[in-house]
Amino acid sequence: MDWITFGILLLACGASAATGVLFPPGRWYAALRKPGFTPPNWAFPVAWSLLYIAMSAAAALVAGQSGQPGVGLALALWAAQIAFNTLWTPVFFGLHRVRAALGVIVVLWGLVLATLVAFWQIDWRAGLLMLPYLGWVSYAGALNAAIWRLNPRPAEVT
Amino acid sequence: MDWITFGILLLACGASAATGVLFPPGRWYAALRKPGFTPPNWAFPVAWSLLYIAMSAAAALVAGQSGQPGVGLALALWAAQIAFNTLWTPVFFGLHRVRAALGVIVVLWGLVLATLVAFWQIDWRAGLLMLPYLGWVSYAGALNAAIWRLNPRPAEVT
Repeated sequence: MDWITFGILLLACGASAATGVLFPPGRWYAALRKPGFTPPNWAFPVAWSLLYIAMSAAAALVAGQSGQPGVGLALALWAAQIAFNTLWTPVFFGLHRVRAALGVIVVLWGLVLATLVAFWQIDWRAGLLMLPYLGWVSYAGALNAAIWRLNPRPAEVT
Repeated sequence: MDWITFGILLLACGASAATGVLFPPGRWYAALRKPGFTPPNWAFPVAWSLLYIAMSAAAALVAGQSGQPGVGLALALWAAQIAFNTLWTPVFFGLHRVRAALGVIVVLWGLVLATLVAFWQIDWRAGLLMLPYLGWVSYAGALNAAIWRLNPRPAEVT
């Protein structure tokens, strides 16, 4: 694995991580009605730290296989998923637009799945490293959807 | 050029474009003191549309050169720049944190320059296609810095 590439990919994840610092859950999130399967707040940064490392390692493995067909397409998918990942937090925690955030997470879910499939065909270890991420985005999507159902007017919650 | 890869890269730019729609300039931006070289508001979506197409075409050209060394690293840099690009608008227009946004744009500028250099070594046309983007981010960075200097307490501007 090329460590410079891995570092740049981790830096890309840093944009997403920064949204978690700049747009913290705060009072609005605390006041929302949430489903029983909501994790404690501390679980999010822990889970994301591990997922950032895993998804960066996965993409670095793929980047190292240049010459194999589909590497460019696979890394384009990875780029798209990290951009939509960076978009979600400002929409949900910044704008309190729960439904728009659900739209973002649906696109993100599709991109993560496509990235996983593309990675697996190049290096099965890279595909495997994306699996926890797909699981977490599925869980986060279910959480976002449940919050949307439980709070018909989320922007008015204080 | 692989059109599927180009489409996925354009989709990645869609996350950045969405921030422009979800976090519009609005009254706060209108009320800020701005330097003489500030472009009219309509110039931003026009410029960005062209830049998204150019940067996606550039990365698709590079993605098509798999087999050449450095393609993985170059696409990792492209992924990092689109993630930081997506971060800027929510920080500036969402949080009104002009100084933090300047920090984001400094990182973005470095990433766009590094992407341009990496692309140029693989396909000079791809490097050339990144040049207007580097120019625009330089300009946007100067604008952000000037707004920071002209508005000591930007969050209090209404």
